[in-house]
Amino acid sequence: MSVLIVGTTALDSIKTPKAENPRLLGGSASHAAVAASFFSPVQLVGIVGDDFPKRYVELYKKHGICLEGLQQVQGQTFHWAGEYEVNMNKRRTLNTVLGVIENFTPKLPDAYAKTPYVLLANISPGLQHHVLDQMKKPKFVIADTMDLWLNIALPEVLKLLKRVDAIVMNDSEASQLTQTDNIVAAIPKIHKMGPKYVIVKKGEHGAILSGPSGMFVAPAFPLHKVVDPTGAGDSFVGGMIGYLATSKGSIETNLRRAIIHGSVVASFCCEGFGLKKTTTVTKKQIADRVKQLEKLVKF
Amino acid sequence: MSVLIVGTTALDSIKTPKAENPRLLGGSASHAAVAASFFSPVQLVGIVGDDFPKRYVELYKKHGICLEGLQQVQGQTFHWAGEYEVNMNKRRTLNTVLGVIENFTPKLPDAYAKTPYVLLANISPGLQHHVLDQMKKPKFVIADTMDLWLNIALPEVLKLLKRVDAIVMNDSEASQLTQTDNIVAAIPKIHKMGPKYVIVKKGEHGAILSGPSGMFVAPAFPLHKVVDPTGAGDSFVGGMIGYLATSKGSIETNLRRAIIHGSVVASFCCEGFGLKKTTTVTKKQIADRVKQLEKLVKF
Repeated sequence: MSVLIVGTTALDSIKTPKAENPRLLGGSASHAAVAASFFSPVQLVGIVGDDFPKRYVELYKKHGICLEGLQQVQGQTFHWAGEYEVNMNKRRTLNTVLGVIENFTPKLPDAYAKTPYVLLANISPGLQHHVLDQMKKPKFVIADTMDLWLNIALPEVLKLLKRVDAIVMNDSEASQLTQTDNIVAAIPKIHKMGPKYVIVKKGEHGAILSGPSGMFVAPAFPLHKVVDPTGAGDSFVGGMIGYLATSKGSIETNLRRAIIHGSVVASFCCEGFGLKKTTTVTKKQIADRVKQLEKLVKF
Repeated sequence: MSVLIVGTTALDSIKTPKAENPRLLGGSASHAAVAASFFSPVQLVGIVGDDFPKRYVELYKKHGICLEGLQQVQGQTFHWAGEYEVNMNKRRTLNTVLGVIENFTPKLPDAYAKTPYVLLANISPGLQHHVLDQMKKPKFVIADTMDLWLNIALPEVLKLLKRVDAIVMNDSEASQLTQTDNIVAAIPKIHKMGPKYVIVKKGEHGAILSGPSGMFVAPAFPLHKVVDPTGAGDSFVGGMIGYLATSKGSIETNLRRAIIHGSVVASFCCEGFGLKKTTTVTKKQIADRVKQLEKLVKF
C-alpha cells in the first residue's frame, strides 16, 4: 500500500569537522520519502522554490516518488545550514531561511486523500493538522516533531497527539514534553496524551517502542564512522512506515520489524552527507544489514 | 566453578536529589561478589578496617561468599562519598578516604590460587597485577577499570590489558583510552592492546561485546526509576562472570547470555541504595527479568 509523506523539502548546507557540503537535498520529507521508497510507493507533499535544482527532482523520480503533491513556486527553497561538533552528537544551526515554506498550505491532490499510511514528518504542527484534515480515514498515521515545536507551538502538538496512531520523538524531546528525565517513565505519560504507539529515538543507542503489547528495545546498527547524521531520524521513520505499508498482517505484529528496517535505513543515511549514501543503497544491502542486526542481538 | 574477585570493599555515603544514605556497604568487590553469588561460589579478596560493621560481614556470609581472603586490620575502611545529579547520569565525588586500602598488598590463601574464574574488579592496576601474579593458570580473567587509573596509572593499565582475556569499561573510558569518540571504532583499538574480549558498558543503553565471533549488542533492562546507580557496573561484571563460571560449554558461546544476566543483576542494583535491593533479590526474580529481556528485544 501507499504512504503519504508531508514534511520539509529543503536545501541543507552541512558542516562537519571534516568537510563542508553546501545546498544538499535535505528536509524531513525528502529523507523520509527516499527511505520509505525502498519498500512502498510514496506520495510526497511539500513545497520548493524556483531555485530547487532539477537534479533533485530527478533524484525523487529515480526512487519512484510521486511528485503530484510537490509544489514548485517562485521564491527560495527552505534552507538550513548547520554545523556538527567533533563527536557528531551535537549540532548547532548556523542559518535558517524559511523561504517558500512560510506560506505553504498544501491542498492535497484528490488521489492522495485516501492513502492508507500517513507520515506527518517534521514540519510545523499547523501544517501537519492541515494535511490530516484532508485525509479520508487513513489506516495508520504517525507524526514526528522536534524541540522547536514543543517550544513555540505546544498546544498544537498536544492536539496532534490526540489525532495520530503513533508519535516518534527523540529522547530529549520526550523528556521535554513530559518533564521527565527517565525515558521509560516518560513513555506512559506520552501515551496518556493520545498515541497508541510511542517510539523514542536514541540515536546510536537505538530506539524504544511502546504499544498495547508492551515494549520493544530496538538496537541501532553499529557504525564505525558517522559521516553526517542529518536526516537519520527522518530516514528511520520513513523506512519504518514504508516497511509497515508493504507488510501483511496487523500493525502491532509488524511494528518491531518495521522499526528494525527504519533503523537500518537510518544507519546508511549516517554514512554519507545528506542523502548521498541513502540514494545509492540497494534493497539487498538493506536486507543484509537487517540480517546482521538479527545476529548482533541474538542471545 | 568458583570465581575469585578482588576489588574495593568500602563504605559508601551516597546522596541523590531525593535521599542521603551514609556508610552503606559498597565497593567494586562487594557489588561484584554479591552479583556473582547468585550463580557461583565466590571468593572475595579485599581489606576492611576495624570500623567495618559486623552486619556487612554477615551480609557477605548470607550470600555464601568465602571471606578467607578478606583482611580486617586496624584503621579506617575505604570510604567514598558522592552525590548524583537530578538525572542520575552524572555524579561527583564529595570525599574519598583511602584508609586501610592504601597499604593493601593481598597474599592470597593457597586455596584461592587455582580458582578458574578471576574478576579483577575496579581497584588500582598495581593491585590487579599483584593478585594476577599469584594465580595459577586461571581459565578466564576479566578486568574492570576506571578513568582515574587511565589518568594516573596508564602504563600499568596497558600492561594489564596484555594479561587478561577480557576488559570491561564504560563508553567514556573506552573513548579516553583510544582517543576515539566512536565506540564501535574504539573497540578494535582496544583489542589491539591485548584482550580477546572487549565489553563496553553504556549504562541505561546496555552494553556492547566484541570477540572473535563478532559483536553482540546487549540491551539494558528498562527501568522506570533509578534509585542509585552506584555499583551497577560492578554488579554487571560480577553477574556476568558468576553466570560464566556456572555455565557448561565454551566461554565464547556463553558470553552473550552471561552479559544478559549481568545486565539484569545491574538493573536490580539500580533500584535500591548501595546493595539494598541486590541483597534482597531472588534467583527467580533474576530469571524472570532475563525472560522479559528476551521478549523485549525479539523481532
